[in-house]
Amino acid sequence: MADITAVISQSIEKLRSNMPLVHCITNYVTVNDVANALLAIGASPIMADDIREVSDITAISSALVINIGTLNERTVQSMLEAGKTANKNNIPVVLDPVGAGASQFRNYTVKELLKEVQINVIRGNLSEVSYIAGLKVNTKGVDTALADSCNNPMEMALMAANKYNCTVGITGAVDVVTDGNRVVQISNGVTYLSKVTGTGCMTTALVGAFMGAGVDSLTATIAGICSMGIAGEISYEKYNDIGTGTFHMGIIDALSRLNTDTYIKRAKLNEKES
Amino acid sequence: MADITAVISQSIEKLRSNMPLVHCITNYVTVNDVANALLAIGASPIMADDIREVSDITAISSALVINIGTLNERTVQSMLEAGKTANKNNIPVVLDPVGAGASQFRNYTVKELLKEVQINVIRGNLSEVSYIAGLKVNTKGVDTALADSCNNPMEMALMAANKYNCTVGITGAVDVVTDGNRVVQISNGVTYLSKVTGTGCMTTALVGAFMGAGVDSLTATIAGICSMGIAGEISYEKYNDIGTGTFHMGIIDALSRLNTDTYIKRAKLNEKES
Amino acid sequence: MADITAVISQSIEKLRSNMPLVHCITNYVTVNDVANALLAIGASPIMADDIREVSDITAISSALVINIGTLNERTVQSMLEAGKTANKNNIPVVLDPVGAGASQFRNYTVKELLKEVQINVIRGNLSEVSYIAGLKVNTKGVDTALADSCNNPMEMALMAANKYNCTVGITGAVDVVTDGNRVVQISNGVTYLSKVTGTGCMTTALVGAFMGAGVDSLTATIAGICSMGIAGEISYEKYNDIGTGTFHMGIIDALSRLNTDTYIKRAKLNEKES
Repeated sequence: MADITAVISQSIEKLRSNMPLVHCITNYVTVNDVANALLAIGASPIMADDIREVSDITAISSALVINIGTLNERTVQSMLEAGKTANKNNIPVVLDPVGAGASQFRNYTVKELLKEVQINVIRGNLSEVSYIAGLKVNTKGVDTALADSCNNPMEMALMAANKYNCTVGITGAVDVVTDGNRVVQISNGVTYLSKVTGTGCMTTALVGAFMGAGVDSLTATIAGICSMGIAGEISYEKYNDIGTGTFHMGIIDALSRLNTDTYIKRAKLNEKES
Repeated sequence: MADITAVISQSIEKLRSNMPLVHCITNYVTVNDVANALLAIGASPIMADDIREVSDITAISSALVINIGTLNERTVQSMLEAGKTANKNNIPVVLDPVGAGASQFRNYTVKELLKEVQINVIRGNLSEVSYIAGLKVNTKGVDTALADSCNNPMEMALMAANKYNCTVGITGAVDVVTDGNRVVQISNGVTYLSKVTGTGCMTTALVGAFMGAGVDSLTATIAGICSMGIAGEISYEKYNDIGTGTFHMGIIDALSRLNTDTYIKRAKLNEKES
Repeated sequence: MADITAVISQSIEKLRSNMPLVHCITNYVTVNDVANALLAIGASPIMADDIREVSDITAISSALVINIGTLNERTVQSMLEAGKTANKNNIPVVLDPVGAGASQFRNYTVKELLKEVQINVIRGNLSEVSYIAGLKVNTKGVDTALADSCNNPMEMALMAANKYNCTVGITGAVDVVTDGNRVVQISNGVTYLSKVTGTGCMTTALVGAFMGAGVDSLTATIAGICSMGIAGEISYEKYNDIGTGTFHMGIIDALSRLNTDTYIKRAKLNEKES
């Protein structure tokens, strides 16, 4: 995977010099981390969710990130509106279907978004993407532990990618990314990442940052997921079991210090026959 | 208090092995800390506040935590709906009446919640619980400093517990927990805890985590409050006066490392004649 | 500037002994930092944005801080209502026009607020204040980098101050504060401050804290801006390039330790001919 590693390691320089503006309609649980992760990686975040302004904001942005973590009727309308504006202006759209499968409202929202908006990348955990791929799942909050043992991530990712003609990234013990054609596994990360809320949301936003810098969707999704995995490794190597608060801070630190060399040294990528 | 200490020290193991899903309808000021505190103690947080999904989410959860810190008309309806679903499904409900007494809207909301929903635990400061107990108070924000000198916490806790047939925990310099029958004082904690926003909200969520793991309400309330007090002590002993930012991080660290021994060594419980 | 330095260095003691309650209607991205910054500097934060309670909450507060970072139709009405209540009760109002110029909805909201409410202090970056001063700008999110090179901060601050009869603080590489008459430049701060979201929002809230302690608007604005700059310097001197997560934590630490001496030693103020 020397080629992909080379490509993603170059993407970080592209991102840092472009400083793309990334419009996020995201949940209020992890929004601060999402903004700080975007700043750390070199992007410029803007959060706006009122229907009276989402089109204006999307139109001046380089990418749109939609995260349904704490959706409500008002913001769902804004997500649809922003998504359509993004499509009209060829601005890439990244979707994080947080908790898909856990409530009818989330299921309905995900369906509407996928119907009304051409999504470029879906980044979720196995249970969320399995729901999107058309299977019934039993989502336990935003937790990946149980779901991970149920289905086959590679199969689910391919199914969703082909169904919606987009790139799909499933994060878990081993992450899988596919554009429906090529399939890449990422083995970076530490289990401690699941003990901090928002590592998934931040990962999705990072994908948006890379896409906003003009990186293609497969590379951007690999780069975003790999960045979070590496940041987790660096933080854990530094702080071990001091606790999840320090580890959390260390993730942002590591993101703010990523450079070409970091990816070359640490990225664990593996292309599979799809 | 060897018996209660033993019981709460065992509860942490129960909690960590059960990983209960805790549904929080909570304020946007401290929601990230609440989620991270729940993960740190071993629970799994899910935040959802739209009326179209709160019933679905509560129904798959092991506990419901309602916090009125930044309530609005929309979320109040969701709180009522979620509370009723919890009651129907025998899912425990914990209420944090943030700022009760400070506005008519908060007072109205607290009254509605207590009328429409059987609350299992109320966790607040002295001024908030005094309002609930039926007394007029002068709430200064979410601050406990002034109110602490006005009324008698034990009297207020008993009054509220008997009035609403629930367990009540009042946090302050010395915390008081009662189920209307037994009364336990907790002397853990450091004054620095009042210099970080959200320590109260996190405490309430921790109570919900213990209840979600099947711990009875008196024990769960003691365990939740005691956990935050101990976490504050550990963080302060480690970092002293470095500043409230580091102290804040240290609280989450300490929560993520609590175990049976921590409670046995540190819990300062004192049962009173009620 | 020995006199102004002396005045602001005394203000911190006044603030810490007064512990003013500061009502914030603010964005959900940085609200936790805003609350913790207020606690760190010695104030008491209360966040409330429902129209059914904002008047009650403002009326018991010592200052009102309005931040339009993630405004929506509901909260804009609450901002107007709270602002009017503040005016009626002679409670100072501080406005952070986040992203003014970036969408028609933000522009409309800023105009409404400035028309319906007497604002005491506007604290923004150059592009936001330039919009307010009546010039067309090209706001890129909440970023100051590009805008800083376009217009003259001193000119813009004076124009806005005279137009709305208030004090204006523009933060950037060098900050400018004016009440329309006196003009003071502040040279504290480090570039790293722009890599953490919310340093602007926190600065605005700190201005509100000083005003809530009875400090006049020119001094309060200088003190608030200078406090954040100094906190950034202290954190950066301590942690250098460890990363933006640690730097972020260090800002709150430093705010919680500010005292009279800190300002005397570090404040870099320069009064200009206006």
